[in-house]
Amino acid sequence: MNHFLSVHDVDSIDRLVNEAIKIKKAPFADQSLGQNKTLGLLFFNQSFRTRISTQKAAENLGMKVISLNIGSDSWGLEMDEGALMDGNKAEHVKEAAAVLGRYCDIIGIRSFAGLQDRLSDYQERVLEQFKKHAGVPLVNLESATRHPLQSLADCITIAEHKKVAKPKVVLTWLPHIKPLPQAVANSFSEWMCGSEVEFVITHPKGYELSPDFIGNTPVIYDQKEAFEGAHFIYGKNWSSYHQYGQILTDGRDWVVDEEKMALTDNGFFMHCLPVRRNLKVTDGVLDSPQSLVIDQAANREWSAQVVLKELLKSL
Amino acid sequence: MNHFLSVHDVDSIDRLVNEAIKIKKAPFADQSLGQNKTLGLLFFNQSFRTRISTQKAAENLGMKVISLNIGSDSWGLEMDEGALMDGNKAEHVKEAAAVLGRYCDIIGIRSFAGLQDRLSDYQERVLEQFKKHAGVPLVNLESATRHPLQSLADCITIAEHKKVAKPKVVLTWLPHIKPLPQAVANSFSEWMCGSEVEFVITHPKGYELSPDFIGNTPVIYDQKEAFEGAHFIYGKNWSSYHQYGQILTDGRDWVVDEEKMALTDNGFFMHCLPVRRNLKVTDGVLDSPQSLVIDQAANREWSAQVVLKELLKSL
Amino acid sequence: MNHFLSVHDVDSIDRLVNEAIKIKKAPFADQSLGQNKTLGLLFFNQSFRTRISTQKAAENLGMKVISLNIGSDSWGLEMDEGALMDGNKAEHVKEAAAVLGRYCDIIGIRSFAGLQDRLSDYQERVLEQFKKHAGVPLVNLESATRHPLQSLADCITIAEHKKVAKPKVVLTWLPHIKPLPQAVANSFSEWMCGSEVEFVITHPKGYELSPDFIGNTPVIYDQKEAFEGAHFIYGKNWSSYHQYGQILTDGRDWVVDEEKMALTDNGFFMHCLPVRRNLKVTDGVLDSPQSLVIDQAANREWSAQVVLKELLKSL
Repeated sequence: MNHFLSVHDVDSIDRLVNEAIKIKKAPFADQSLGQNKTLGLLFFNQSFRTRISTQKAAENLGMKVISLNIGSDSWGLEMDEGALMDGNKAEHVKEAAAVLGRYCDIIGIRSFAGLQDRLSDYQERVLEQFKKHAGVPLVNLESATRHPLQSLADCITIAEHKKVAKPKVVLTWLPHIKPLPQAVANSFSEWMCGSEVEFVITHPKGYELSPDFIGNTPVIYDQKEAFEGAHFIYGKNWSSYHQYGQILTDGRDWVVDEEKMALTDNGFFMHCLPVRRNLKVTDGVLDSPQSLVIDQAANREWSAQVVLKELLKSL
Repeated sequence: MNHFLSVHDVDSIDRLVNEAIKIKKAPFADQSLGQNKTLGLLFFNQSFRTRISTQKAAENLGMKVISLNIGSDSWGLEMDEGALMDGNKAEHVKEAAAVLGRYCDIIGIRSFAGLQDRLSDYQERVLEQFKKHAGVPLVNLESATRHPLQSLADCITIAEHKKVAKPKVVLTWLPHIKPLPQAVANSFSEWMCGSEVEFVITHPKGYELSPDFIGNTPVIYDQKEAFEGAHFIYGKNWSSYHQYGQILTDGRDWVVDEEKMALTDNGFFMHCLPVRRNLKVTDGVLDSPQSLVIDQAANREWSAQVVLKELLKSL
Repeated sequence: MNHFLSVHDVDSIDRLVNEAIKIKKAPFADQSLGQNKTLGLLFFNQSFRTRISTQKAAENLGMKVISLNIGSDSWGLEMDEGALMDGNKAEHVKEAAAVLGRYCDIIGIRSFAGLQDRLSDYQERVLEQFKKHAGVPLVNLESATRHPLQSLADCITIAEHKKVAKPKVVLTWLPHIKPLPQAVANSFSEWMCGSEVEFVITHPKGYELSPDFIGNTPVIYDQKEAFEGAHFIYGKNWSSYHQYGQILTDGRDWVVDEEKMALTDNGFFMHCLPVRRNLKVTDGVLDSPQSLVIDQAANREWSAQVVLKELLKSL
């Protein structure tokens, strides 16, 4: 593995999931692998689980971790090639990436979609600039269009809880009060398309995701119909891809509650967190034994650790 | 010890103080105890001594430390059970606590009083939610009503400097320009009530602390009378408990100066820092050999270390 | 070495440069030196390279690192002796320095010039207060008037790239949109004055640096004339020292471009970063093989490591 930016960097999801489950049983077995290696974590946006789980995973492997918040710890970065930098950005990403690549053995980057300019977001300019200039392996800590460490943790969680060989997994849109990126939904779709599952997406009309991520996945506009017989319900809000960054409906009838969960085959509820309780999903569902949200989050440690281990082995 | 939230978690103050003094002489003797253990430090408020001394103490014990500022590094947390989360809080404390408990072996939390709603502050909702959901030992890094790591450091400092078996210790209110929590004063009182000292409190009328913390401690409204024959003067400002969060008087005549210190029995001056010079206490007192403020702060490392050591042993 | 605040703390620049180049070849050879030693890093201002390279260097030496942002992680510090602290500063530097000195074995401090009051900036009040009260070795992470870790990295970079025994080094003023401190220019001058180079400064009239830093260095007001035959062009903006903190000219004709670089003896371009592309220097120069800006930044790790190593040896 050269980088971990998307599912396309993974030769086998199954192998990675199995390796992660092995690591979970013996987290400190590979501490010599990371000795004298430094992971740099660059945050253009806030983070809770990603920041902590990735640091923890790296330290489990014996690595040192240096975290930096762009904009508070350090200055804003210019992304445009050829820019005359007379505005409020003091440094160009070219320099920042190249310099960080000289201090760190692996770099993790969080940089959310701005939701103003679809072309720019979907070009993944921040990751691409780091890829071009940093010269070291990169880990996507949630980019404009993907969140692969989350998706891998989701795959681990499904593997641990599935009761049938090919479970039915439903990605359902949830209501929210502000426009959110498509990254988690895109990424989850991409990983599900590469997994041994029956994958279905349900959302209100207008919230269709980019075909580049969902392939031929069936989209069902009736949420209850989609839930029928499901083994895993994966909830997430996203703003419109086609009317980019827009909220098209308040969608309050898309909240996941116990009544809807009753339509599933004793299905589990999944969500990547943070989750706004009772806006997206009810307390009843989140506090039920069928909720996997904490397990999912806990598996972020193992998804990060297996990825870092693979990258360390390739150094 | 299951948690370290208040003096009530301590079986013997004396034993803890003596153990801390032992640790101070050989800080790196227990490094295997913390190996592969992670301390998570969560700050809802700013911190200087607590942040650094606790990290240092944990690292002395061989632990890893992950610090997170809520609100800048990460998002705001909803505390209300059953809330419809359509406001500015993106995550519920239930999830945050449970997730952090999966990544960390021990969690430290700083969360000051809001001083708007006494009931809510004195219910210690943040600590209680973490206690319910985190599933790992907690350390109070100053909560709405208590600051036990400070109080333990104060007990260590008194033990190191006392010249009589049962010294007279005076907690005196000091003036300030803005309303401050009662946490340090409450906590110090609680620890003094459990210690072999003659404990007295002095403050202007209206600044009475909650009886839950001071018990039968005598309150003397005449500061100079209280100072007579004292071995330790412990200064601190707090806002009114009964007229909750209010400043009732500017109290400029309550400043501690050399003249007042002359009334004591060659007494030491103590304060938990930060201290506003010449507003609360004069340069003359702070820069005199009788000031213990730096020793107190330095002892924060040992109070944190003895607490973490106890918690690690109970894991 | 007792402190590393300026070139005056260095007995031999050459020895330090050679030692740094040795460390660069075996960065992990001295890990026992820093065992159980803690470096505290205090930032009054933002930082990217300094923060990361200094942390990395310390960890290479086996040290622990605790970083703190004054103003966000912690509160503002009062600098004035005798102040009545009834404003927005909650803590005096006396206490902060003394306390930090009890937790940390070495302290690094970043504190930029305010550019409002020359006397105050040039008195280096923050460093001086820490020197007086911290009681441990200090490292200057860029102060009001100097940036010696950068200057040492610059010396390492020149040593690695020079092709003649005594190269011609030109410090050139560059345009900028806001007033910047003189620290980097002062410091570079000071280190060049102590090095085996032909050192020349060029800037528009009115931007003369303090004679305390440049000594007898020739100043040439014609940039192109200064560039002739140069082996190293060191670009930097600074605001006026004499009309303190003022921008006297937009100086757009002082941008370094390929045409100007052609006047040099196949000279290298240096800049301490961050650099505003096309405002101070063109993409053509920065992206050319003659640009050393990334190597300079990478050498910050080794300048920090050699300094920390010297200080650790003196503990």
